[in-house]
Amino acid sequence: MNKIKIGIIGGTGYTGVELLRLLASHRNAELVCITSRAEEGIHVASLFPSLRNHYDLSFEDPSKADLTKCDVIFCATPNGIAMKHSPNLIDAGVKVIDLSADFRISDVDIWEAWYGMEHACPERLSDAVYGLPEVNREAIRKATLIANPGCYPTAIQLGFLPLVENGLIDASSLIADAKSGVSGAGRKAAIGTALCEVGDSFKAYSVSGHRHLPEIKQGLQLLTKQVVDLVFTPHLLPMIRGIHATLYGKLVGKGLEMSESELRQIFVERFDSEPFVDIMPLGSHPDTRSVRGSNHCRISIHRPQGGDTVVILAVEDNLVKGAAGQAIQNMNLMCGLDETSGINNVALIP
Amino acid sequence: MNKIKIGIIGGTGYTGVELLRLLASHRNAELVCITSRAEEGIHVASLFPSLRNHYDLSFEDPSKADLTKCDVIFCATPNGIAMKHSPNLIDAGVKVIDLSADFRISDVDIWEAWYGMEHACPERLSDAVYGLPEVNREAIRKATLIANPGCYPTAIQLGFLPLVENGLIDASSLIADAKSGVSGAGRKAAIGTALCEVGDSFKAYSVSGHRHLPEIKQGLQLLTKQVVDLVFTPHLLPMIRGIHATLYGKLVGKGLEMSESELRQIFVERFDSEPFVDIMPLGSHPDTRSVRGSNHCRISIHRPQGGDTVVILAVEDNLVKGAAGQAIQNMNLMCGLDETSGINNVALIP
Amino acid sequence: MNKIKIGIIGGTGYTGVELLRLLASHRNAELVCITSRAEEGIHVASLFPSLRNHYDLSFEDPSKADLTKCDVIFCATPNGIAMKHSPNLIDAGVKVIDLSADFRISDVDIWEAWYGMEHACPERLSDAVYGLPEVNREAIRKATLIANPGCYPTAIQLGFLPLVENGLIDASSLIADAKSGVSGAGRKAAIGTALCEVGDSFKAYSVSGHRHLPEIKQGLQLLTKQVVDLVFTPHLLPMIRGIHATLYGKLVGKGLEMSESELRQIFVERFDSEPFVDIMPLGSHPDTRSVRGSNHCRISIHRPQGGDTVVILAVEDNLVKGAAGQAIQNMNLMCGLDETSGINNVALIP
Amino acid sequence: MNKIKIGIIGGTGYTGVELLRLLASHRNAELVCITSRAEEGIHVASLFPSLRNHYDLSFEDPSKADLTKCDVIFCATPNGIAMKHSPNLIDAGVKVIDLSADFRISDVDIWEAWYGMEHACPERLSDAVYGLPEVNREAIRKATLIANPGCYPTAIQLGFLPLVENGLIDASSLIADAKSGVSGAGRKAAIGTALCEVGDSFKAYSVSGHRHLPEIKQGLQLLTKQVVDLVFTPHLLPMIRGIHATLYGKLVGKGLEMSESELRQIFVERFDSEPFVDIMPLGSHPDTRSVRGSNHCRISIHRPQGGDTVVILAVEDNLVKGAAGQAIQNMNLMCGLDETSGINNVALIP
Repeated sequence: MNKIKIGIIGGTGYTGVELLRLLASHRNAELVCITSRAEEGIHVASLFPSLRNHYDLSFEDPSKADLTKCDVIFCATPNGIAMKHSPNLIDAGVKVIDLSADFRISDVDIWEAWYGMEHACPERLSDAVYGLPEVNREAIRKATLIANPGCYPTAIQLGFLPLVENGLIDASSLIADAKSGVSGAGRKAAIGTALCEVGDSFKAYSVSGHRHLPEIKQGLQLLTKQVVDLVFTPHLLPMIRGIHATLYGKLVGKGLEMSESELRQIFVERFDSEPFVDIMPLGSHPDTRSVRGSNHCRISIHRPQGGDTVVILAVEDNLVKGAAGQAIQNMNLMCGLDETSGINNVALIP
Repeated sequence: MNKIKIGIIGGTGYTGVELLRLLASHRNAELVCITSRAEEGIHVASLFPSLRNHYDLSFEDPSKADLTKCDVIFCATPNGIAMKHSPNLIDAGVKVIDLSADFRISDVDIWEAWYGMEHACPERLSDAVYGLPEVNREAIRKATLIANPGCYPTAIQLGFLPLVENGLIDASSLIADAKSGVSGAGRKAAIGTALCEVGDSFKAYSVSGHRHLPEIKQGLQLLTKQVVDLVFTPHLLPMIRGIHATLYGKLVGKGLEMSESELRQIFVERFDSEPFVDIMPLGSHPDTRSVRGSNHCRISIHRPQGGDTVVILAVEDNLVKGAAGQAIQNMNLMCGLDETSGINNVALIP
Repeated sequence: MNKIKIGIIGGTGYTGVELLRLLASHRNAELVCITSRAEEGIHVASLFPSLRNHYDLSFEDPSKADLTKCDVIFCATPNGIAMKHSPNLIDAGVKVIDLSADFRISDVDIWEAWYGMEHACPERLSDAVYGLPEVNREAIRKATLIANPGCYPTAIQLGFLPLVENGLIDASSLIADAKSGVSGAGRKAAIGTALCEVGDSFKAYSVSGHRHLPEIKQGLQLLTKQVVDLVFTPHLLPMIRGIHATLYGKLVGKGLEMSESELRQIFVERFDSEPFVDIMPLGSHPDTRSVRGSNHCRISIHRPQGGDTVVILAVEDNLVKGAAGQAIQNMNLMCGLDETSGINNVALIP
Repeated sequence: MNKIKIGIIGGTGYTGVELLRLLASHRNAELVCITSRAEEGIHVASLFPSLRNHYDLSFEDPSKADLTKCDVIFCATPNGIAMKHSPNLIDAGVKVIDLSADFRISDVDIWEAWYGMEHACPERLSDAVYGLPEVNREAIRKATLIANPGCYPTAIQLGFLPLVENGLIDASSLIADAKSGVSGAGRKAAIGTALCEVGDSFKAYSVSGHRHLPEIKQGLQLLTKQVVDLVFTPHLLPMIRGIHATLYGKLVGKGLEMSESELRQIFVERFDSEPFVDIMPLGSHPDTRSVRGSNHCRISIHRPQGGDTVVILAVEDNLVKGAAGQAIQNMNLMCGLDETSGINNVALIP
């Protein structure tokens, strides 16, 4: 079988180097082009010595690179870039997987309000498929443009999904207390992500409103006729990778009558055939390291003290299931490959 | 003025060495005795080189030490020890400050259920004053036995207190999503607190029920006639010191009509004269390092998206305001000293 | 091709779980047995949730397990165990790779002096091949018993090797200032490796003499007729994985006449065909994360200020090239497989 | 007694906030002015919430601030700034303590070569006293301009000093393998100090030549008639504070005849009356946390295997004894105060 020709736009960030790490062991994919305005001409292994002997490729200027020779393009760019490149690429027959937020929100007004810029191609929003395979697998297979979900939204939607779908919790009073490793903030020169500022410390941020809020609400709203509302509190962990979402829902209706074990069973059944969603045994507390470098989302379900609040714990690696791994999962689906190809490695413990 | 003679029972743990650190710069206190069964005869500075040149004292066997020569005894022992020592000491005229949980719960049945042992002196429980100065200052001044609050309960009670006292939130559906540095687990040989197990990772624990739950509920229940109920989810942070409590309350009654700024004002007024509770400016996100090594609890108040949930962020150093610092604050009150004496240092940043 | 049947004795430590991680993606190997006295009957994925869905195997009691059905056995046990199991296994036709120190020192008196116990099978020491492929590749291919090198000795020998072989430095005054992540101390309940003790701190240890010293000296002595002597100073890094060896040698003879670039060229030529030794560009400072989870050893060569001291920087992942990865590299060689099979993944950055 | 009036130029970096932390508990000092071009008008506690309730002062523009009202000015500025401000301040009768490198090197050509700029006031270099109290105490008492030593040079000079002074090691072949926490790189927006780049990793840097090299050589050269030469290898630790210097010297002459204990005794005697140099017991390995936040330098002496290399381990907090604490120690000496005033706190453990 011929290898799929891959291009990466904007490969100098953490999602870019994670794509490179995972694609290096993907048997059916071959990187043929990677771009970066700032690092043009630099060998990828000069920037990331971990890639030495794995790639022989240098960054190209995006305006000069011939990206249409690719079968699939990953946009690992800051918000606002992919929406400029994608229309031409798609029209040229290239499949595009956007890891930024440009195509995640279907309502352009909401997108523009939260992202503070004008959308470059609102007419393409309806073509974009939200790349959460556990919800949209069949649509993803046929898609030409994927809006790869945000890191927080992936964990939070997967954690709430079976309860919201089945009307077991009050969708209008959800709470997501989420914690992320610093790599979620991207690779950039900034005091706010310096080791001396965020190491050995912990804090919340953007409590008044984080850009992933409308994405989460949109995703959950599609699952229920109830009005969805959410308090979403992001926090910054003194570590590199990993998201832990602690989710709170008020049990209602049948949910109130279900034991912890029965609630867990709802999850087991919903995700039974999912290769990357792992429902932990009763009483578990998944740790983020159990998914470090892997594409799994591990979830456990609690009903503390038998009260009317269900507590869901969901962990993922923000750079894998929360970004590059899920993007490759989407590529595998779009290209008719084994869904787990290249992303079925074991997490790095310790 | 004569210095107060201090004794410490069980000085080899993290609260013990933190007492030693703080007392070394306390002008009105003098350590005269420190005990440890395991380390009898060992110089304190042999165990903790940070204390070299600050103390010239060795650990004594608790059964041989003459503790009645002390004015104040701190019990920095595991649960179940202080309740055996305290009655005799108090009867001999010594003031006792217990940093363990032995005297924190006034209902002996609840205590025995959560702590899994028989209480040695239930008749003394009513003599114990719960050592949260922001609630019990006057009682503390006159007390002979202090139940020094737990680390989580301190941050969580201070964070909910003004809202519960004023009936602004529904006390029956509180959520406390709390995160602690590993020092909260104490100083002991255990795989579960090894750097390779909890470093660079994050997880929840004891979601089904943590021993601090009844203590928090008891404390908040004293402030209101509503029935208090709480979901309390502790998590373990990959760092040494610091607690961050993210608290969620459903606004009710007048609370629903109050802006974020007005809600904050309730806190400002309640803690106006408190030396160690710091209400942050609107929109703040206190980080735990801002209280690293200091006795402050910093609190900020949010009402995200103007919704009906108030979000309180409260940080403290679990070993200072959550343990040794608060114990010294109580000692200062009991002994008629300046309340801030010895514990007014600046946090260590970076 | 039939898969090689693998057994692991003592699979509950960090080298054990690392073997499991790597073997999970090895196409020609199949784990058929894993033992642990303490965890008998426990599923491997119960102990290490990262392995969920990758293995369906429980720990067996080593005295009950039929290990002779295996083609290759890895001993990932504490020192002193492998020497008891190995003779019978080898006699039964099983290839044994010992990740402990039992067969690393050919002089039994030296071994017994440093390891403080009597050797159980000194007559087998001469059968053991020291498993450093860069030195002993051909012997490894034919071996039935491999003494897998220690973590420090791997990095230090590789770093000094070309200089000692070529007589470019004074072998009698070597200095190895080496730093290791905490996983090098193994997985066990101990105060000394608790996050609160070794996190955010750094120290040397065993400066008076570390067990890896005789192993390093023995290895280097085989390369030269000069008398080898070494000062070896191990340090503990506040991190999980990774060894950084900073090596100092006094240039002599031709070495004194060589530029930094010429010295580097000696390394390039020596390791030209080595799949896992990477000589970095001039002026480089390899970081340990560049080999996190990978089997590479990256080396750079410096001659600061043009003085007569050469400084070699060598990094490896102590659990991979310093333990489990190198063990699999040895297995690949012993079994006639591609030497890089199962261990050619990219390091995890960030 | 009147308090000494303190000014700080450039108070927004880590040495600036550390000066603020320490001065807050100094009984004889009062901060009256702090400047920052970038943060003019911002309250110090807005930038550093740890200072809330400790200071009521905002940053002033350095060109507008009246610094001559101060008794002592600390320059906590990047290199190249203090040399512009100092002459006028000194001429106006203000004592200046420069924490940057501007006055550390007495040979202006060497300074200009290493720092890459022209010196603004070479005629003042001879007035500057190198502020290492253990060497220059009497000169410091009388000085008007202090060149506060660099962080690495403090630990390395103190560690080698007794051996070089007494001619016990070959001063021409010293090796200093030094490791620093990231705060040594200062507070700035830079990828190179981001948590995701330097966390959980370790590397050497500037092996070809670091600016502290000429400072160390100059300091040691003043102690001996031998020619001093040094290989200095700095490394970056994945932690915030702390320097660990591992020092290697070849014993010569009488040194060769001395036992580890006798060598240690040389240190004990040399530093007998020093309040901030602590010679550890035989066999010790000081950890950096034992000086976290304190002004001590702890040193231990080893002669491994009885060989001819002595190994010195020296730890300090780079921001305290390596910067702000030593600066205050110098201020105390210059102003006739108790040398330990304000800097005698216990290190923060854990």
